[in-house]
Amino acid sequence: MHALNGFADRVWTPQGWIADAQVRHGADGLEVAAAGAPPAGAERLGRWVLPGLANLHSHAFQRAMAGLAERQGNAEDSFWTWREVMYAFAGRIGPEALRAIAAQLYVEMLKAGYTRVCEFHYLHHRPDGTPYADPADMALALIEAARETGIGLTLLPTLYLTGGFDGRALGPRQVRFGHTVDAFLRLVERLRALESDRLNIGIALHSLRAVPADALAAVLASEPARQGPIHIHIAEQIGEVQDCLSLRGARPVDWLLDHAAVDARWCLVHATHLTDRETDRLAASGAVAGLCPTTEANLGDGLFPLKRYLAGGGAFGIGSDSHISVSPVEELRWLEYGQRLTAHRRNIAVAPEQPSTGERLFGRAWAGGLQAAGLSGAGRTHGDDLLVLDEDAPLLAGRDADHLLDTWLFAGNVPLVRHVHGGGRWLVRDFHHHDEDRIAAAYRSAVAALRAD
Amino acid sequence: MHALNGFADRVWTPQGWIADAQVRHGADGLEVAAAGAPPAGAERLGRWVLPGLANLHSHAFQRAMAGLAERQGNAEDSFWTWREVMYAFAGRIGPEALRAIAAQLYVEMLKAGYTRVCEFHYLHHRPDGTPYADPADMALALIEAARETGIGLTLLPTLYLTGGFDGRALGPRQVRFGHTVDAFLRLVERLRALESDRLNIGIALHSLRAVPADALAAVLASEPARQGPIHIHIAEQIGEVQDCLSLRGARPVDWLLDHAAVDARWCLVHATHLTDRETDRLAASGAVAGLCPTTEANLGDGLFPLKRYLAGGGAFGIGSDSHISVSPVEELRWLEYGQRLTAHRRNIAVAPEQPSTGERLFGRAWAGGLQAAGLSGAGRTHGDDLLVLDEDAPLLAGRDADHLLDTWLFAGNVPLVRHVHGGGRWLVRDFHHHDEDRIAAAYRSAVAALRAD
Repeated sequence: MHALNGFADRVWTPQGWIADAQVRHGADGLEVAAAGAPPAGAERLGRWVLPGLANLHSHAFQRAMAGLAERQGNAEDSFWTWREVMYAFAGRIGPEALRAIAAQLYVEMLKAGYTRVCEFHYLHHRPDGTPYADPADMALALIEAARETGIGLTLLPTLYLTGGFDGRALGPRQVRFGHTVDAFLRLVERLRALESDRLNIGIALHSLRAVPADALAAVLASEPARQGPIHIHIAEQIGEVQDCLSLRGARPVDWLLDHAAVDARWCLVHATHLTDRETDRLAASGAVAGLCPTTEANLGDGLFPLKRYLAGGGAFGIGSDSHISVSPVEELRWLEYGQRLTAHRRNIAVAPEQPSTGERLFGRAWAGGLQAAGLSGAGRTHGDDLLVLDEDAPLLAGRDADHLLDTWLFAGNVPLVRHVHGGGRWLVRDFHHHDEDRIAAAYRSAVAALRAD
Repeated sequence: MHALNGFADRVWTPQGWIADAQVRHGADGLEVAAAGAPPAGAERLGRWVLPGLANLHSHAFQRAMAGLAERQGNAEDSFWTWREVMYAFAGRIGPEALRAIAAQLYVEMLKAGYTRVCEFHYLHHRPDGTPYADPADMALALIEAARETGIGLTLLPTLYLTGGFDGRALGPRQVRFGHTVDAFLRLVERLRALESDRLNIGIALHSLRAVPADALAAVLASEPARQGPIHIHIAEQIGEVQDCLSLRGARPVDWLLDHAAVDARWCLVHATHLTDRETDRLAASGAVAGLCPTTEANLGDGLFPLKRYLAGGGAFGIGSDSHISVSPVEELRWLEYGQRLTAHRRNIAVAPEQPSTGERLFGRAWAGGLQAAGLSGAGRTHGDDLLVLDEDAPLLAGRDADHLLDTWLFAGNVPLVRHVHGGGRWLVRDFHHHDEDRIAAAYRSAVAALRAD
């Protein structure tokens, strides 16, 4: 790994902005210290330097269908009709297409400011449900896509057993997703052997409707579940909450908190429909709420109770999920705006000790993202990757550090991430990823083949 | 004016996409006709050509404060505390700064796909309320900014008389905005003399709280009000609705529809808080609802009843208003998403005859914007300006015409407007405005001077 030795006018840290700062890689990730003048041999990074963000929820293959489901399917168009389009699309994607789509997506993520992604990966088998020659082929395609782009990957092989809370078998278009618990745990162990600085392996449980109680208990008691992050989709849809209530006698988040030792290793993705009590319990658990505001808006899911959750000390991060949008700016901006629109108030995600909405949203999403990716333990407080904003952008003219994150997150529509350093090298320079042309060409071929099928 | 003679793979018109189309300027604006093969001498425009959009609501000076008000002002932060920040900021802007800020803004608008802007202009006088040497100096600054960037301008000098529904005098920071009715009408007539292909003059009434009933009647009966568009802020805030109810005995939209001959020349800006009856009456009036989703979200205003309004045949357009965002994509995307989030349904702005959400939103916003700008009469159905999207963008790979507007409006976060033709010339080529560097430098100087004051 190239040992970065840089100097910047202002570097954001969880403790605040540091002026005239030296930035180096150390054992705990980026080390930032006030230096006064540029140290000998230090590379000038720029005026505004931020740590890279983790995108805590991704289904990479869905990137290729962005824009294809914004037509009315029937009179009562909802999440469930969107899912039909998604299944039809997913049914045609093999390892080669997945790799090409994911690589294009990861380039877009890096250019937007995400330097790590958590892949909630359930597209395991051939369309007819039989395993590929190597049952890890689809997972390996994601690993390869991450490697060729330089993004850090937290891969979460996903357990998907049943088609509903009633325990029904998977439907014909879901058989690609399924595993026995044993085969699933073998896949996790197989992938763990590949872990590196830029790759770690966690576990995902698709949802309570796809994982019966006994299977949940078996996985959580297994050896592979003793380390790494654990993610689960939960309480995204009102219908799902109603089914859980009628078939398990409790709402999804209450049920999970009652049946699993949910702690800081967990990420509950969406968690949209919560009672006040569930909101408080989730906040107190130490788990990360995995919020995906653009996808949740696109799907008409609803709004997370952010104000109460933050008041309870809850951790959250953001994910681009379906990749209808790929931008931490849009996720955080509209996470806040959704709250404002319903509360008829401004500046919701603030606290007396942190009056800047942008600063608080960024700080929380950064910390929650690292936690959900399994990277915040053992003194690693800064992460390894950094972003340099475009100091020449007219949008940032006249902005001081107090207003920098407010301006980046709330103002304008032009990408402001100019350079991205990750995994010990510059991945993006002057808005261009070093391999973006080749990757875009491969993506175009893959999409053309999918559309022609 | 340069007579465009172009050829494109697909051109959007209100009647649908036209393939292999010739595009020329005629007496009624752009003329688009299927041509089969490229006509002799025709310039290739690109794969996807759209008409330019009108941005129907702008307070240009506010662009320079984007990002400065996203900090908590007090425990109950709202529109009214935002307004305090805005007043303090407005108090320092003179004609030279206004011109520099507006020019930067108009470059950003052109690059985002707006080729016309309606300026709701109330920053008329010196900070102490005395007129400038020429009382039109601030209006002329906006005209000059539009001219140097090439954007079309619909200038709406704004009548602002009182500080509230109770008829109180303007406060010390509002005296810049005020006019007698006579002085206001003189300003309108003065500016009318400057009208051209790229400049027309309408009238704005700031709001019901700033224009008493007798003044409203006097202006509407005057000679200058017999032509051109008429805009008014209305029903943006719940407090404003309550004040109107208690002091005028009716809700704002009901009151206006009862006291003015509201028709297709009118644009009611915001119109956020409507009863079902007001929604239906407004839709039936033929007026345009001037929706500003990003500003309305930033200010915590609330959500417009889009579904019912469209069902009633209502016209709407979009405006970037405070310019916290400058993008028709973000306005239309989140106009739709706000509806989805509260209805828990997808694809709200569709109709049986037009199942594409993006197509319907674009078509309505395009037509409503032209109407609000006073450009849709006398057979002018296409407008004069056009946009060419980036055919090389990976986001558009594999997208056919049926999904093109859905993809542009809903997917991704990278600007896709590559070229812009307006007023008979190319204003933006390959994402760059022909004069953007000089304009950005002038903007930076203006902001630095404002911040240093």
